[in-house]
Amino acid sequence: MRTRIYNARILTMEDGAEIFRGEIQIEDGKISSVMSCDDNNGTGRKHDVIWDEEIDACGNLIMPGFKNAHTHSPMTFLRSYADDMKLQEWLYDKVFPAEAELTEEDIYWLTKLAIMEYLTSGITSSFDMYKLKHETARASEETGFRMVLCGDINDFGGTAQDVENDYLKYNKDKDSLISYQMGFHAEYTTSRELMESLAETADRHQAPVCVHCSETKKEVEECRERSGMSPVAYMDSLGLFRHGGVLFHGVHMDDSDFDIIKNHGIYVVTNPASNLKLASGIAPVKRYLELGIPVAIGTDGPASNNCLDMFREMFLVTGLQKVMCDDPEAVPARDVLKMAVTNGAHAMGLTDCDAIAPGKRADLIMIDLSQPNMQPLHNIEKNIVYSASKQNVKMTMIGGRILYQDGEFRIGETKEDIYQNANRIAERILGK
Amino acid sequence: MRTRIYNARILTMEDGAEIFRGEIQIEDGKISSVMSCDDNNGTGRKHDVIWDEEIDACGNLIMPGFKNAHTHSPMTFLRSYADDMKLQEWLYDKVFPAEAELTEEDIYWLTKLAIMEYLTSGITSSFDMYKLKHETARASEETGFRMVLCGDINDFGGTAQDVENDYLKYNKDKDSLISYQMGFHAEYTTSRELMESLAETADRHQAPVCVHCSETKKEVEECRERSGMSPVAYMDSLGLFRHGGVLFHGVHMDDSDFDIIKNHGIYVVTNPASNLKLASGIAPVKRYLELGIPVAIGTDGPASNNCLDMFREMFLVTGLQKVMCDDPEAVPARDVLKMAVTNGAHAMGLTDCDAIAPGKRADLIMIDLSQPNMQPLHNIEKNIVYSASKQNVKMTMIGGRILYQDGEFRIGETKEDIYQNANRIAERILGK
Repeated sequence: MRTRIYNARILTMEDGAEIFRGEIQIEDGKISSVMSCDDNNGTGRKHDVIWDEEIDACGNLIMPGFKNAHTHSPMTFLRSYADDMKLQEWLYDKVFPAEAELTEEDIYWLTKLAIMEYLTSGITSSFDMYKLKHETARASEETGFRMVLCGDINDFGGTAQDVENDYLKYNKDKDSLISYQMGFHAEYTTSRELMESLAETADRHQAPVCVHCSETKKEVEECRERSGMSPVAYMDSLGLFRHGGVLFHGVHMDDSDFDIIKNHGIYVVTNPASNLKLASGIAPVKRYLELGIPVAIGTDGPASNNCLDMFREMFLVTGLQKVMCDDPEAVPARDVLKMAVTNGAHAMGLTDCDAIAPGKRADLIMIDLSQPNMQPLHNIEKNIVYSASKQNVKMTMIGGRILYQDGEFRIGETKEDIYQNANRIAERILGK
Repeated sequence: MRTRIYNARILTMEDGAEIFRGEIQIEDGKISSVMSCDDNNGTGRKHDVIWDEEIDACGNLIMPGFKNAHTHSPMTFLRSYADDMKLQEWLYDKVFPAEAELTEEDIYWLTKLAIMEYLTSGITSSFDMYKLKHETARASEETGFRMVLCGDINDFGGTAQDVENDYLKYNKDKDSLISYQMGFHAEYTTSRELMESLAETADRHQAPVCVHCSETKKEVEECRERSGMSPVAYMDSLGLFRHGGVLFHGVHMDDSDFDIIKNHGIYVVTNPASNLKLASGIAPVKRYLELGIPVAIGTDGPASNNCLDMFREMFLVTGLQKVMCDDPEAVPARDVLKMAVTNGAHAMGLTDCDAIAPGKRADLIMIDLSQPNMQPLHNIEKNIVYSASKQNVKMTMIGGRILYQDGEFRIGETKEDIYQNANRIAERILGK
C-alpha cells in the first residue's frame, strides 16, 4: 500500500522544526519520504511509483497524531451517569457496582465507542488501563487503532505473573497495533507483597512500571499514615521505578517526590479535565517542566472527564498553569504540543510514532485550517493549542490507513451499530 | 417564511422543562408553535400550511442558541499574535498599537470572521464591546447575526451624549438584529466626571450600565488606592447601577461587593478561558449562584482566549468551581446551561430569545447527537456541558433563518473571501 499526501503544511514535531509546505510518502504503514516543496516542485519525486492513494491536503496541516497517555476506554457506558458528585460516593456507590456487571462483549463494544471518539479528536493511540484487556485489544485491532495496554493488577485481581504473561504476549509482534506496559492500579489498592513481586518482574525485563499516583490529597495522606512516606517515595522504596515508570495524574507532590521522579527518568501524565471535574486539584506541570521532567497528557476515562478530547486537555494544561502560577508565560503552546505528541509516544513506548520522518509509522492527522477558529493563519501551532477543537480534525490515519475522514468512519462496523450496542449495555447495567 | 422542524428532541430551557420529542413551527422569524409527539402524532398539526422549509431533525436536539455575553469581535486579527505574555506587555506593547491601525472596513471584515466562528459554536447572539460599532452592526445585519452592541466610552474617546445617541439609534427598531446597551470601558480608564455624566444618562432612560469590572487584582488595588473603595463600590457610589447593570469578568470581589451586586439586580458575565490565559484569576461563580446573583457566560475577545467557543467556556465554568471550591457538586450541568442561554439573553436585554416557546424569536441550534461524544444518550444535558464541542453543532438558526448547517455557511460572502480579507488585514497591521 503506497500513499502520498501532497500540497500539505507539515509539522514534523522533530526538535526545533518549523512548519513547511511539502509532501509525505507512505509505504506499508511507514513514512518513506518527507519532502519540502523545493524538493519536489510540488509534484512528488517518485514519478515511477503507482500510488494506491493520493491525498490532496489542500494546504491543511499534517502532523503526528496525538497520544492519549492515560485512559480507561470501556468506561464510555458511564458517560453522564454520575456527575456532580463527591469522589468517594461516585466511585463506591456508582462506578464500582456498575463495572462489576460488565461482560467481555461489553468491553469490546464500549472500547469501539471510545475509539470512534479518539479518532474524532486526532488521537492515534491511547494508553489504556482496564480489565479484560484481550477484548480491548480485539476491538482495537479490528478497528485499526493503535492501543497500548497497561497492567492494572491490584488486591482485587491479578498477579505479577499475569503481568509478565501479558507483557510477553502483547509485545511479541513488533508490528502489531497492540503493545503492553507493566503496571498496577495504585498504591492504595495494592499490597506491599504484590508491589514487591511486580518490582521483581519489572527487573527481569528491565521494564518501566506505570501506576495511578498522588491523584488526590487523601491518597497521599493515607499513604503517609500507613508507610510514613509519600506514594512516590514508598513505591520507590519497593524498587518499582528502577527501570523508570509512568505516573498517572501526579497532582500532589513534594520536593523529594520531584527528585525521585527526575532521578529515575519517570514520565508524568497529566489529566487536567478529570482533575477539575472530580475536584482532585491542579498538577504542578510548570514545575515538572522546569525540572526537566517529561510530562504527557491523558483524557482519563469518560466517566470522570466526560469527553475524550485532546484539544480541551491541551488548553487546560497551559491555562491552568498560567492562572495557578500567576504567570501568563507558563507552559507555552509549543511545550504543550510536545507533551501531547512526543512525550506521550515516549511514555507509551511508541518511539516510532513520535514524529514525521522516514522510517516512523504513519500515524498522522490532518488539521482543517479552513475553519474560522484557525484564521488568520498567523501562528498555526498556537492556533492548535489555544483555538482548535474536534471540528478541526479532517483526517485521522493510523499505520498508513485512514480510519476517519470528513466526519466519516472507516472502522468496519457502522456507527449506528456501535451506538446501539453501547446504549443497550448502558441501559442493561444502569437501568432507567 | 414558514418553517417546521420535526422529529426533534426539544430542550425549551423554560424553568424545570425536561427534554421531549416533538416539533417546532416558525413563522416570520418567531416560534409559532411547539408540540410534543403526542400533540401531533409526529406529523405536524397544521396540515393546511404550505411550508417554505421542512427540516427533519433526525432525533437530534433543538435548543435555544447560546448567548455570548461578553466579546470584542473585531479582535480576530490578533488571534495567536501575542500569547504566553504578561498582561501589561501584552496590552500596551502588542494590542493597543495594533488596534490603533484598524480602519472601518477592517472592523467590518474582522467581525464577519468572528460571526462565522460564533455560528460554528451555536452562538446566536453576542454582546460586543468595540470601537466603530456601526461597522460591527453592518457586518452583523448583512450576515443575519443578532448583535447587542455595548457602550465602550472612556477617557480616550466618547461622551455620555454619544452613548445616548447610540442607545436611541440602535434600539429604535424592535425587530432589528441590532440592539444596544449603555456601557463604558472600565473604572480605570474613565474619569469620575465621565462616569457621573453616564449615570445621569442612564437615569433618563432607566437603563442598566455595563462595564469591565474587577478582572485583575491590580485593577482592584489601584481603585482602592485612588478612591478608597472597590471598583464595584466606587461605581455604585457614582450612581451607575441605579437601574441595574452588567459586570464583565467579576473575578476579584469582597463581601460588600456581593451585597451591592445582589441589591441592584446586577448580572455578572464570567469569561473563564480568558481569565486563565491572562492569569487573571478564577471568578467566584459558585458564591454568586448561592447568593442568587445571575451569572452569564462570555468568550471575551479572540486576542485573549483565543477561540470563540461556548462549549469550552461551559466546561470551564463548572470545572474550575469544582476544583477551586474542592466540591465536585459545585455548579451542576443544568445551571451552566441556564447561564449560557437564559441568563445571557436577559443580561443582554434579549428577553424574547431565551427559550423555545410561542412568540419567542427562532434563534435555535441543532446539536448532533450522532457523534461518539454524545453516546450513550443517558443524560443529554450533561453530555452537552461536559462532552460537547463545535463538532456537535449541526445547525445554527437566527430569526428563523439558517446561517450555518452541516459545516456550510449561508452568510452572503464565501468563507474564502472573509479569510482572505482577515489575513490581509493581519498581515498589513502585524507585519511579518
